[in-house]
Amino acid sequence: MVKSEEPSHVVAGEEAAEVVTAARPSVKYALEAIGTFFLVFTVGGAAGSGSPFAPLAIGASLMVMIYAGGHVSGGHFNPAVTLAVLVRRRIGWRDAAGYAIAQLVAGLLAAAVVREVVDPARAATVATLTLAGRTLVAAFVVELLFTFALCFVMLNVATSRSHPDNSFYGLAIGFTVMAGAFAVGDISGGAFNPAVAFGAAVMGMFAWSTLWVYFVAQFVAGAVAGAAFLVLNPDDR
Amino acid sequence: MVKSEEPSHVVAGEEAAEVVTAARPSVKYALEAIGTFFLVFTVGGAAGSGSPFAPLAIGASLMVMIYAGGHVSGGHFNPAVTLAVLVRRRIGWRDAAGYAIAQLVAGLLAAAVVREVVDPARAATVATLTLAGRTLVAAFVVELLFTFALCFVMLNVATSRSHPDNSFYGLAIGFTVMAGAFAVGDISGGAFNPAVAFGAAVMGMFAWSTLWVYFVAQFVAGAVAGAAFLVLNPDDR
Amino acid sequence: MVKSEEPSHVVAGEEAAEVVTAARPSVKYALEAIGTFFLVFTVGGAAGSGSPFAPLAIGASLMVMIYAGGHVSGGHFNPAVTLAVLVRRRIGWRDAAGYAIAQLVAGLLAAAVVREVVDPARAATVATLTLAGRTLVAAFVVELLFTFALCFVMLNVATSRSHPDNSFYGLAIGFTVMAGAFAVGDISGGAFNPAVAFGAAVMGMFAWSTLWVYFVAQFVAGAVAGAAFLVLNPDDR
Amino acid sequence: MVKSEEPSHVVAGEEAAEVVTAARPSVKYALEAIGTFFLVFTVGGAAGSGSPFAPLAIGASLMVMIYAGGHVSGGHFNPAVTLAVLVRRRIGWRDAAGYAIAQLVAGLLAAAVVREVVDPARAATVATLTLAGRTLVAAFVVELLFTFALCFVMLNVATSRSHPDNSFYGLAIGFTVMAGAFAVGDISGGAFNPAVAFGAAVMGMFAWSTLWVYFVAQFVAGAVAGAAFLVLNPDDR
Repeated sequence: MVKSEEPSHVVAGEEAAEVVTAARPSVKYALEAIGTFFLVFTVGGAAGSGSPFAPLAIGASLMVMIYAGGHVSGGHFNPAVTLAVLVRRRIGWRDAAGYAIAQLVAGLLAAAVVREVVDPARAATVATLTLAGRTLVAAFVVELLFTFALCFVMLNVATSRSHPDNSFYGLAIGFTVMAGAFAVGDISGGAFNPAVAFGAAVMGMFAWSTLWVYFVAQFVAGAVAGAAFLVLNPDDR
Repeated sequence: MVKSEEPSHVVAGEEAAEVVTAARPSVKYALEAIGTFFLVFTVGGAAGSGSPFAPLAIGASLMVMIYAGGHVSGGHFNPAVTLAVLVRRRIGWRDAAGYAIAQLVAGLLAAAVVREVVDPARAATVATLTLAGRTLVAAFVVELLFTFALCFVMLNVATSRSHPDNSFYGLAIGFTVMAGAFAVGDISGGAFNPAVAFGAAVMGMFAWSTLWVYFVAQFVAGAVAGAAFLVLNPDDR
Repeated sequence: MVKSEEPSHVVAGEEAAEVVTAARPSVKYALEAIGTFFLVFTVGGAAGSGSPFAPLAIGASLMVMIYAGGHVSGGHFNPAVTLAVLVRRRIGWRDAAGYAIAQLVAGLLAAAVVREVVDPARAATVATLTLAGRTLVAAFVVELLFTFALCFVMLNVATSRSHPDNSFYGLAIGFTVMAGAFAVGDISGGAFNPAVAFGAAVMGMFAWSTLWVYFVAQFVAGAVAGAAFLVLNPDDR
Repeated sequence: MVKSEEPSHVVAGEEAAEVVTAARPSVKYALEAIGTFFLVFTVGGAAGSGSPFAPLAIGASLMVMIYAGGHVSGGHFNPAVTLAVLVRRRIGWRDAAGYAIAQLVAGLLAAAVVREVVDPARAATVATLTLAGRTLVAAFVVELLFTFALCFVMLNVATSRSHPDNSFYGLAIGFTVMAGAFAVGDISGGAFNPAVAFGAAVMGMFAWSTLWVYFVAQFVAGAVAGAAFLVLNPDDR
């Protein structure tokens, strides 16, 4: 581990996206793409293996990618999180759009690798989740609630002025997804992330016809989390 | 992640509840409600799914909510913890009452969402735990012991003067609940928290007639943990 | 969480047991007893429940107790660790003896609660592990190796001069036990700790006649780990 | 835990292998050997037990050994990681060769102990993984991707100038392996490490005839990860 005797002069891109950006946008988009690729690839690999440990693998994958790239790009890997950070005013519109594109393209790519390489090496693939009536309503509610939790945790641990240089931000964000996927994964599949939901549709886990449910729930949750942060932290703008 | 080159001037509400409160009481109560809501919602979701990973999901949910809100409200999400902090003199009577009300109301709300939205989307629900004779005694003892452990760990990692700005406080507190729920969850259900026990009764997991056993064990444990901290740390008042 | 703007002036008992002891011996022995009690109680509770998650619960229990009490007593909860710390010269003979007594008494007490209260509430109890011939040799070797790993990790993360004020020491120590218990628990039971082995014998999990195998392997491992630390860190005495 | 009021003056060997080496090479090689030994021993022990928790045990084993020895040797325990660090110019050719030899010898030794001591105490051993046609291609791809992820995470959390003295580096690296082993362990065995692949062949888990697939995928991944780090972090050389 690198040890330094001077305080770090690198300021994370998120702190003030318009003011300080040590890293060029292309580097940040690349990091968002790398992180989202491995998140969606882990989703496809772990869910497709039928392992009951899939939520732990997925939460851990998100955690490690946040620790690897979060200090440069903020470690969103999730368009709903990017929306929450936009509402909380720590990223600009242009960068937010770039992030979302990088995330969705990376999710698509990861899903393609799972479909073309990993799935064919397996005897069985996961069934497509069907949602209708009360299961559709339940899926909407649990995606809304846990995506809110994810964005709310992220804003508080990774963009708050209160605990700079903490070492728990990746653990907190990744394990929110893990907790949600264990708790309500059987209801909605436990995506909490439009890039994951999109990738899951590409991989045949989610039905294309119900994808809008995920998108609406997740983006509403991200926006509400951003607004909630602003209300609860009036001095941290 | 936000990086700051100056030390943080925000002082957590718990350090000296009567002296420094950067956050208004309403903000602290709101954070206690949000954290307890997600804790109880995860309990209902995970236990109702029949997943053997439920204790991991529940401990992780507590952990992430502590990391998200603990720097403002102290991250109790548990009336027994609030009692322990009251005995240890880091919260006043008025705030303690506000915390307990916020926690119980949030637990009730989460349980209602589980009952009305999540449970109907599932084929089966959890059976109500029955306690009588030696199982009642065992449940009392294990709830007493692990609620003591939870409050004792919390006071030492989150209110002690010895390791300010540590990054492990949420992990330690959340994983105490996880360890207890794996170890003795089959005996008592592994609540260690009156708000969780109350929510579990609302969700039909605990019998209303045995709820007093949990409350007595948990509040006694919280008070004893607070007193034990004072005895073992005479210089940290 | 407590935030402080001044550096902490509390120095952990282990740094130089003969020089600085902010805490009285009785407080340190009490913390060793509390931590060991919950460790052995979790062993009995989790193993007795038949849960495959027992190693996670046990490792987590050790971790949280280290975070709760390690800054005062060093968080050994294990006579083999105390021996390693003695060889590494961070505790004196008198304190080491006091620690070992506190640990064994606490282990006995926890085992008694499991036997008298928890076991009777369960339909079945764990079978006693039988060791003979090649299984006895294998148990000796795996207990030796993982107790060495445990003591070696502990000395490096919690007594080394290289990373003061790190936040990972409890995670590293607790998860060493977890890793070992998952890897070789089916061979030896995965004790890696004379207080746990003694408690396991009291709870009927280990045979009294094979307990010496554990003790020899564990104390040899602790002594070797202490010596290895001194050889590998000649400047850190 | 040791608390120090002065900043640490120990600089990790990796920061500038040619400039600062507080530790002698022999100490660094010894630490690489100890860490790799326990990693491979945990692989053999956990996989051989048939436990579905094997990936958690293995990731935890890597994590704890990094926390124990990483501040001195860098905590590679993996020739592909050593190659990535070589490309990123934080270790010299001579030390890299010494590291790789220490890692492979330690892996061989651990595998021998598993074969001679642990396996004979078990009723069954793991079957040898067979790879051919599409499963061989899939194994190559997943080993390439997750070894890249492992090396990329390692370089960013443990050799980057951006977050010195963080406490998460071991968690991030270890849990990358865990996530990968849960996600694609059924495809390739989840080695992500030539020393582990070699040890797995010695233990009869991998076929000698397919070992080259692992080596090619893993070393390519390590080299690419090193190059990717240099491209994405032009100011951190």
